[in-house]
Amino acid sequence: MIQKLIDAIVEKKAPVVVGLDPNLEFIPPQLLAQAREVTEETPYGDRESAIAAEAVWQFNKKIVDAVCDLVPAVKPQSAMYEQFGIPGLLAYRSTVQYCRDKGLIVIGDVKRGDIGSTSAAYARGHLAGKAFDVDFATINPYLGSDGVKPFIEVCREHDRGIFVLVKTSNPSSGEFQDVRTQDGRPIYELVGQKVSEWGESFMEGRYSNVGAVVGATYPEQGEQLRKLMPHTFILAPGYGAQGASAKDLKSFFDEDGLGAIVNSSRGIIAAYKKEAYSRFGAEHFDEAARAAALDMIEDLRSVL
Amino acid sequence: MIQKLIDAIVEKKAPVVVGLDPNLEFIPPQLLAQAREVTEETPYGDRESAIAAEAVWQFNKKIVDAVCDLVPAVKPQSAMYEQFGIPGLLAYRSTVQYCRDKGLIVIGDVKRGDIGSTSAAYARGHLAGKAFDVDFATINPYLGSDGVKPFIEVCREHDRGIFVLVKTSNPSSGEFQDVRTQDGRPIYELVGQKVSEWGESFMEGRYSNVGAVVGATYPEQGEQLRKLMPHTFILAPGYGAQGASAKDLKSFFDEDGLGAIVNSSRGIIAAYKKEAYSRFGAEHFDEAARAAALDMIEDLRSVL
Repeated sequence: MIQKLIDAIVEKKAPVVVGLDPNLEFIPPQLLAQAREVTEETPYGDRESAIAAEAVWQFNKKIVDAVCDLVPAVKPQSAMYEQFGIPGLLAYRSTVQYCRDKGLIVIGDVKRGDIGSTSAAYARGHLAGKAFDVDFATINPYLGSDGVKPFIEVCREHDRGIFVLVKTSNPSSGEFQDVRTQDGRPIYELVGQKVSEWGESFMEGRYSNVGAVVGATYPEQGEQLRKLMPHTFILAPGYGAQGASAKDLKSFFDEDGLGAIVNSSRGIIAAYKKEAYSRFGAEHFDEAARAAALDMIEDLRSVL
Repeated sequence: MIQKLIDAIVEKKAPVVVGLDPNLEFIPPQLLAQAREVTEETPYGDRESAIAAEAVWQFNKKIVDAVCDLVPAVKPQSAMYEQFGIPGLLAYRSTVQYCRDKGLIVIGDVKRGDIGSTSAAYARGHLAGKAFDVDFATINPYLGSDGVKPFIEVCREHDRGIFVLVKTSNPSSGEFQDVRTQDGRPIYELVGQKVSEWGESFMEGRYSNVGAVVGATYPEQGEQLRKLMPHTFILAPGYGAQGASAKDLKSFFDEDGLGAIVNSSRGIIAAYKKEAYSRFGAEHFDEAARAAALDMIEDLRSVL
């Protein structure tokens, strides 16, 4: 699966993934009004959640239509759908399917992780081509090898991949991840090394199907982890809204411009709310998203 | 919410939570056969998943009916439902509601955790009395304070609580959790200290609504963490099938026998598959679960 992602990045000359994190505040009012009109009562939740889920689904389709020829991949964030219960998860499922139909690679940002047989159940739910049919899922490493390996087994069987959290993009990620061990290394480095080891048994060409999440907001750590994990593909969130720039990201890539893919969520999907793209207005939020995606791609190309 | 849990533990004299992790292999064949008969095609997944979800739901009802007068709480594990997609999550939702209707406290074992606004969305999904209406959720601390605090905010608003993973029960939990920092302390101790700090602002009586998950399989660490986190309630999984005994668990409790609640999943719900309860047979799996729950309660009472 990692080779399929790399091929798509090369073809589109865009190491960019669009984060489909449709917080309700990003949804233009006209979509919410339309959703309110067409949404019927649901036995599986309150009507407001069903309306929100319908609006999210219509929003996502427009965004995906606007960027699917530009970028290789999308990353729906499961929390934004789970918050609306069953209707929200139906929107998640439909979104994943819609993106696949458009030829996009789908990274399910689910950050799951548990012990043995429970991780295996999560893996079957997300990476086995059935319930929620994503190509990659993000995984939390806190429980160690026997929380991660069941995901790898299911991925092997179904040609899927994972990105394991190593150094996350948020301000407090250092609280535990940066703590130095007795030999002076930070915890994220230990995790990175383990990710690299887990990945060795699941290579596909130059890179492994076991990737790593490294926040674009931490360029020094990105550079260090790039060297420490030579065959590990990096998923780097934090560009744009969270503050990272293309310059910060150069060190996440290998010399040939591969080895990483950069995520932007609200910077693209809610671009119409930013001054730089406000000319599009809420009516043309999808065109604003396309313009922002083009700018992001150009920005990254300028340093690669 | 923690006081409500404590009151229920005291009333039933049973610091026991039954884990509703209905792996398909635990479901008796007659329930699967019945589910196959009554399950119609679903637009939201394959028929096999819908059949499995229906069987799980019928299984759970029987288990809950059999133990609800004995124990204060149940802990459904979201992975076991997510693996069956939307039909599975409908079974999860129905199970949660059924348990609430029986007066049980529900701990959603979801192990979620993300950055700021995303954690807030998970919290709204699980702890706001709407989408998935549980009383407590388990949380992964790897992303630090700004991944955990949004859960606490939502809990405060809706009178809910969380249990944060500190030292997990699985064999490889030590890979990262036991790593010693430069001052010689293991990572789980750092996490435990943070959990205790987070909890200080959200006390309810003697304990906090911010609890900790500490695996019953690690009694020494349990003893140490009990002392380190004096106002933190401990959720201890790992009794029975994972190998921990009542003797191992004594140190997780305070002197008055409070401060912890012990989970058993397959040891109770799949008791009929164990030699000790095989006399009940698959037909009477619920009676086997009741007998196993009674034995577990008695076992714990013997050391408290």
